[in-house]
Amino acid sequence: MSYVYDRRLRKIKEKASEKTLDVVIIKSAPNVFYFTGFEGGGVLFIPVDGDPILLVSRLEYERAKATSFVEDIRVQALKDTPLKVDEKPVYAETAEKAICCLLEELKAKKVGVEAPTPKLEEALKKTIGIDTIVDFTDVVTSMRSVKDEVELEYMAKAVKVTERAMKRAIEVIDVGVSEREVAAEIAKVLYSEGVPSFEPIVASGENSVYPHFTPSERKITEGDLVIVDVGAKINGYCADMTRTLYIGKPRGKIKELLYSVLEAQRKAIEAIARGKACSEVDKVARDYLREKGLAKFFVHSLGHGVGIEVHEKPALSTTSKDVLERNMVVTVEPGVYVPGLGGVRIEDMVLVTEKGYRVLTTFERELF
Amino acid sequence: MSYVYDRRLRKIKEKASEKTLDVVIIKSAPNVFYFTGFEGGGVLFIPVDGDPILLVSRLEYERAKATSFVEDIRVQALKDTPLKVDEKPVYAETAEKAICCLLEELKAKKVGVEAPTPKLEEALKKTIGIDTIVDFTDVVTSMRSVKDEVELEYMAKAVKVTERAMKRAIEVIDVGVSEREVAAEIAKVLYSEGVPSFEPIVASGENSVYPHFTPSERKITEGDLVIVDVGAKINGYCADMTRTLYIGKPRGKIKELLYSVLEAQRKAIEAIARGKACSEVDKVARDYLREKGLAKFFVHSLGHGVGIEVHEKPALSTTSKDVLERNMVVTVEPGVYVPGLGGVRIEDMVLVTEKGYRVLTTFERELF
Repeated sequence: MSYVYDRRLRKIKEKASEKTLDVVIIKSAPNVFYFTGFEGGGVLFIPVDGDPILLVSRLEYERAKATSFVEDIRVQALKDTPLKVDEKPVYAETAEKAICCLLEELKAKKVGVEAPTPKLEEALKKTIGIDTIVDFTDVVTSMRSVKDEVELEYMAKAVKVTERAMKRAIEVIDVGVSEREVAAEIAKVLYSEGVPSFEPIVASGENSVYPHFTPSERKITEGDLVIVDVGAKINGYCADMTRTLYIGKPRGKIKELLYSVLEAQRKAIEAIARGKACSEVDKVARDYLREKGLAKFFVHSLGHGVGIEVHEKPALSTTSKDVLERNMVVTVEPGVYVPGLGGVRIEDMVLVTEKGYRVLTTFERELF
Repeated sequence: MSYVYDRRLRKIKEKASEKTLDVVIIKSAPNVFYFTGFEGGGVLFIPVDGDPILLVSRLEYERAKATSFVEDIRVQALKDTPLKVDEKPVYAETAEKAICCLLEELKAKKVGVEAPTPKLEEALKKTIGIDTIVDFTDVVTSMRSVKDEVELEYMAKAVKVTERAMKRAIEVIDVGVSEREVAAEIAKVLYSEGVPSFEPIVASGENSVYPHFTPSERKITEGDLVIVDVGAKINGYCADMTRTLYIGKPRGKIKELLYSVLEAQRKAIEAIARGKACSEVDKVARDYLREKGLAKFFVHSLGHGVGIEVHEKPALSTTSKDVLERNMVVTVEPGVYVPGLGGVRIEDMVLVTEKGYRVLTTFERELF
C-alpha cells in the first residue's frame, strides 16, 4: 500500500519543484489522510528533497504511529509537558509556532501551503523570514479529484455497504413507520461495516420538500414520497446515493415529477464524458426539467465529486469551471421540490472512464 | 419559544450598540442556529435598529421558512435563475457579494462580523466602503458558553438518550462481540431519537490506547479494557459521555489505572465552582495523575464546553484563559493511555451552578 503514498508524494514534489519551492505544508485533515493514511489531522511537511514529517497533537501520537505511512512523527508540546520516552517534541504554544519551528529545521525559504490562513502567512513571513508562499490548495484538490486504483477499490466497497443500507431502508419503510426508525436501521448497517459518510436523510410526505433534512418522528403514510439519501464511509472513502420511493401507485403530478427526475438523471448520466465541461452536464438535466416546467424547483446543483470527502471537486453546477477527467467520480442527482406537493431526488455515483462513464451504484431506481 | 431568540438578539444588539455598530453579521452554522433555530447555515444580518434578515441558499429556503424564527428570508441567486413566486432574491455570484448587497440595503457603515475572513473584509471595505469591522466571534462564543433554561432542557434530553445508548452498549459488550457491532447498536439508539453528536468510539484492548478511534472489526476478549465514548444530539443540542469497562476482574496495573482515573475525575469535579479558572480544574486532575506517575499518559485536556457543538468554550486545559461561570456545561474527562497496557477514560457532563456544580450524567461509573 505504501506505493500509493509514494506516488502521491512524488507527484506533489514535482509540482513543488516546478515552482522551485523547498517544502509543501498540508494542513487539512482530509488532505493529510490522502498523503499519509492517517485520519486524525495534523500538519504534514513534504520537503522536495527529503522524507515527510508529520506533526500531530499528543492526543493523536499513538494512532499516527500505528496508521500513517510517515516514519518521522513529531508532537506539539509545552516545555513542561511530561512526555513518553519515544515522543519527539516540537515545543510551541500555537500551531503557527510549531510550523515555524519545523520549517526552520528544514531550512525552508520558499513554501507551498495547503489551506493557508492570514495568521500563518504572517507568522511565516515575520517570524522566520519565509519569502515565498504559494497557495497549494488547488493543486491538492485537483490531485484528489482524479482517483487511483486503490481509491476506486475502497469506493466500490463503500458503494456496496451503501446499497446494503438502502436495501434495509426499503425493507423497513412502510405505512406507520417513522423516519427515525428508518434512519436507525440505516445507521445500524453503516456502523456494522464502517461509518456514515453523512447523516442519513429520510424525508417523507411534506418533509420531502427539504433537500437537506434531519429524520423526524413523522410516520410514513399512504401517498407519501419518501426520499432516502445515504452513504457509507469505508477505509476513509465515501459513497453517496439517493432513492425516492412512493407509497402507493403514483398518478398525475406526482407521477410526472418522479419520471421527469428519472429522465433528467438518465440524460445527464449519458452526457458524462472526459473532456466535457461540468456545467454542460448540469445544463442537460436543467434544460430537460425546464421543458417540463420544473426548473424553478431544481434548487441545487446537479452533483459533486466524491472521495475522501462526500462533497469534493469537481462541481457539476451552472457556474462550475471544472472539466471532467478520466477516473473522476461524481454524483448525478437532479431533484425537484414542489411546495405543497413533495420532493423527488435520484442520485447515483458515476465514474468517468476512458470511453465514457460507468455507473457505480447499480441499485434499482424505479421504486415507485 | 421565540422569546428565547428575542432575548439572544436583544443581547447581541446591546453588545453592538456599545461599539456603535449598525449591523452584526453571523456566518457560522452553529451560531446561525443559536440566533434563529435554523440548522442549515447561511448568513444572518442583525441590524441594531431593526428586524433580522436571513440569507440562505435556494437549497435551504423551504427549511429556513419552516424552522427559523426569522420573518425576512432572502435567497442568493443568479440573474437568470428561475425562482419560485415567494423567493426574495439577492442577485450575486458569491457569498461576499450577496453580503455586500444586503449591507448596502441596510445602509450599514460599521459592522460586527462573526467568523470574518480576509476575503470578506476586503469586499466590505473596497466594494461598499464599510469603514469599521469588529470581529464578533468571541462575543458570540462567550454568549453560547453560558446556557439558558431552554438549552439546559434540551441538553437534559440529550443526556437521557446518551445514557440509553450507553446502557445498550453495556448490554451487548461481551467476549466475541466486535467493536463495530457495539457501535451499530449505539447508533441505532441515537438515530431512533435524534442523531449522534459525534461518531461513537468503541475502543477495546490494544485499541484503547487511542483517545480518538473509529470502531474496528476487533472482537472483544477477556482482559480487555473497553472505552465507550458516546453522545446524542437532540433538538440541536449535544451530550458527551465516556465509560471504560473491564472484561474480567481488574488486577495490578490495570486496576491502578482504572481507579486513578476515577479518582482524578472525582477530584476535578469537586473543584468545579463559578469564578474558578478552568486551568485550575485541569490542574487538579493532572496533579493527582502526576502523583500516580501517570501524567505523561494523560495526553489531552481535562474537558470542554458542550452545547450546540460537542466541543465549544470554555476549554478545561493547561493553557486555558477561561473562567467558569454559572450555567456553563463542561465535560470532565481525564484519560490515561499506556502503550502496551491500555487506555482508560471516564467522562461526565457537569453544570456549573450558583453554589457549586451538578453532574448531569448520572450513569454508573465503576463498570470494572
